Amino acid sequence: MNYQQFISPNTQFYHSSQPFRLESGELLQEVQVAYQTWGRLNAARDNAVLVCHAFTGWADLETWWKPLLGVNRALDPNQDFIVCSNILGSCYGTTGPTSTNPATGKPYNATFPQITVRDMVHLQAQLIIHLGIESIKLVIGGSLGGMQVLEWAVSYPDRVRSLVVIAASGRHSAWCIGLSEAQRQAIYADPFWQEGFYSPEQQPVQGLAVARMIAMSTYRSWNSFTHRFGRQTATVSDQFAIASYLQHQGQKLVERFDANTYITLSYAMDRHDVTRPGLTYESTLESIQQPTLIVSIPSDLLYPPIEQQELARLIPHSTFSWLNSPHGHDAFLIDTEVLNQIVLQFRQNWQFREPKDVLSTICES
Amino acid sequence: MNYQQFISPNTQFYHSSQPFRLESGELLQEVQVAYQTWGRLNAARDNAVLVCHAFTGWADLETWWKPLLGVNRALDPNQDFIVCSNILGSCYGTTGPTSTNPATGKPYNATFPQITVRDMVHLQAQLIIHLGIESIKLVIGGSLGGMQVLEWAVSYPDRVRSLVVIAASGRHSAWCIGLSEAQRQAIYADPFWQEGFYSPEQQPVQGLAVARMIAMSTYRSWNSFTHRFGRQTATVSDQFAIASYLQHQGQKLVERFDANTYITLSYAMDRHDVTRPGLTYESTLESIQQPTLIVSIPSDLLYPPIEQQELARLIPHSTFSWLNSPHGHDAFLIDTEVLNQIVLQFRQNWQFREPKDVLSTICES
Repeated sequence: MNYQQFISPNTQFYHSSQPFRLESGELLQEVQVAYQTWGRLNAARDNAVLVCHAFTGWADLETWWKPLLGVNRALDPNQDFIVCSNILGSCYGTTGPTSTNPATGKPYNATFPQITVRDMVHLQAQLIIHLGIESIKLVIGGSLGGMQVLEWAVSYPDRVRSLVVIAASGRHSAWCIGLSEAQRQAIYADPFWQEGFYSPEQQPVQGLAVARMIAMSTYRSWNSFTHRFGRQTATVSDQFAIASYLQHQGQKLVERFDANTYITLSYAMDRHDVTRPGLTYESTLESIQQPTLIVSIPSDLLYPPIEQQELARLIPHSTFSWLNSPHGHDAFLIDTEVLNQIVLQFRQNWQFREPKDVLSTICES
Repeated sequence: MNYQQFISPNTQFYHSSQPFRLESGELLQEVQVAYQTWGRLNAARDNAVLVCHAFTGWADLETWWKPLLGVNRALDPNQDFIVCSNILGSCYGTTGPTSTNPATGKPYNATFPQITVRDMVHLQAQLIIHLGIESIKLVIGGSLGGMQVLEWAVSYPDRVRSLVVIAASGRHSAWCIGLSEAQRQAIYADPFWQEGFYSPEQQPVQGLAVARMIAMSTYRSWNSFTHRFGRQTATVSDQFAIASYLQHQGQKLVERFDANTYITLSYAMDRHDVTRPGLTYESTLESIQQPTLIVSIPSDLLYPPIEQQELARLIPHSTFSWLNSPHGHDAFLIDTEVLNQIVLQFRQNWQFREPKDVLSTICES
């Protein structure tokens, strides 16, 4: 499939022909990053806001976080130089399983190496340097995006001045890993999977659709399905409306996403653990010095509030906020007007202070 | 596969060569019920306790509810004539997709008709009459078992004197239907599924294993997986322990369960809705006159407490009890000592009263 068709015409590309070293020790001979920007970098090169996208997302945040973007909104192009880059391992313009392996001239597919959230962040850091950004005012993201935010804080503590982590955890739980594994096994059970060496025209669509159906369920909640669908039957068949809806969601994903990419990114999330060598999980989080907003969704089954409460307890200069919603994990993509207000309020409390001022304020209080 | 091997030697069989009419209007030309009993029917024929099993369960409750069975326990063979029958549509001795269709001399497989929880209960009622039971002292069950209990109450109100409904709902939610649909689609995606016309030696084991992995996750919880597995890796491979555990659970199920049976019973649960013709859901539940214990598990994701709270609110003579456990839906099969105490207490409050006394007590209070 040609994934180029999903890439916005406003997308820019950063290429590097330098080998990119992964956390595993493996090298990617060259890398490319697809990204979009809004607003302008100021003369001090310190007004950048980095937005990290979630699992099957992409760089064009206008398509998935529009209410957060605009003048006097959480992401304000008049004030901020907003950068969103497609993540390493994805299929929307950044190097991933569907990219051409320069060593063979063919797509990596199943030979794409194992990557981590830390690798995604290291590649974003190259882009940030390439763009001439000295200091990032804010890194923000939900779900896998929130995991990247935490990795930014511990990997590049001197580059980032504030953080917003939404519906994420500091390390992937057994619960999330188990649900990921069920999704991967659904893909593996499809005869077209072929250990990942399927032809681009014949990917394991049934298995990938089932994976998406599992995932979509875990992104929502009892409440959201009950109120939206109840026990209604679908209009075009006698099956239940919710069954028809999930099948449709599965179908929609297979038309825009690649199975090897799904596997690669799902494993990267499972490996997510911010713990640094020589530190514990707790002391790693305690080492984060930036003002941090932790947003938690009470109905989130996948990354339940206990995980964000722990983050807020351990990260010293953190603010905890509920995003009240019946929609489950996906609330950060659904209740975006409310989220915009929450992020805006946090930014209004911090944004006009310089890093040193912030730290001295905290130390004085 | 020969499912006889899983049937306890203590199993008895009830055969009927009379056609059995299903709710859909379809007929089964003959039916068989596998059942086990403990204790003896008394002279008044009114000390029977009917135990209804869950989705992949069977008649031998000693293998799954042993702590509830015994002298001075919730199910006491010295006092009760305890009956547990394998449900219609199952593969452990009662008529279902693996049974021989008398019209063809071959197993029904994919031609087995669609059934409902109400059909399961109607077949149990035939067994009850066959056993000479005049009045059932208690009907008890968890999950699909609890759905059967509610159907008993509304289908045979004069036959049943008290009810225990555990971790169940009065109608399957969109949430449960959605998760069932993902499981069914996992089976359909397996090339050995063959629209249900697979050979008994080559059932869609990968698809069925994935279905079980999804289901097992929904039967447990964030807490139970986190505390049992955390981010440990498995001893025999470098994958996470939880991934290895779920794969093992999937494998175990395919060695003892049939894919057509899985589909048949999963649809039966999705169709579950106690609403009676001419009544609403609410007024159907309000019509239940028996003393009823509703047990709810706070960590149950699949049938969350809001569903049991609604049952308790609507059923007039109900008692609500929490089964406190971190284990999720499966707590009714795990925390059985606590459950035993809860049921015992309910029974001690009601069991020595005759139906008339019970009702007069309620009316007086």
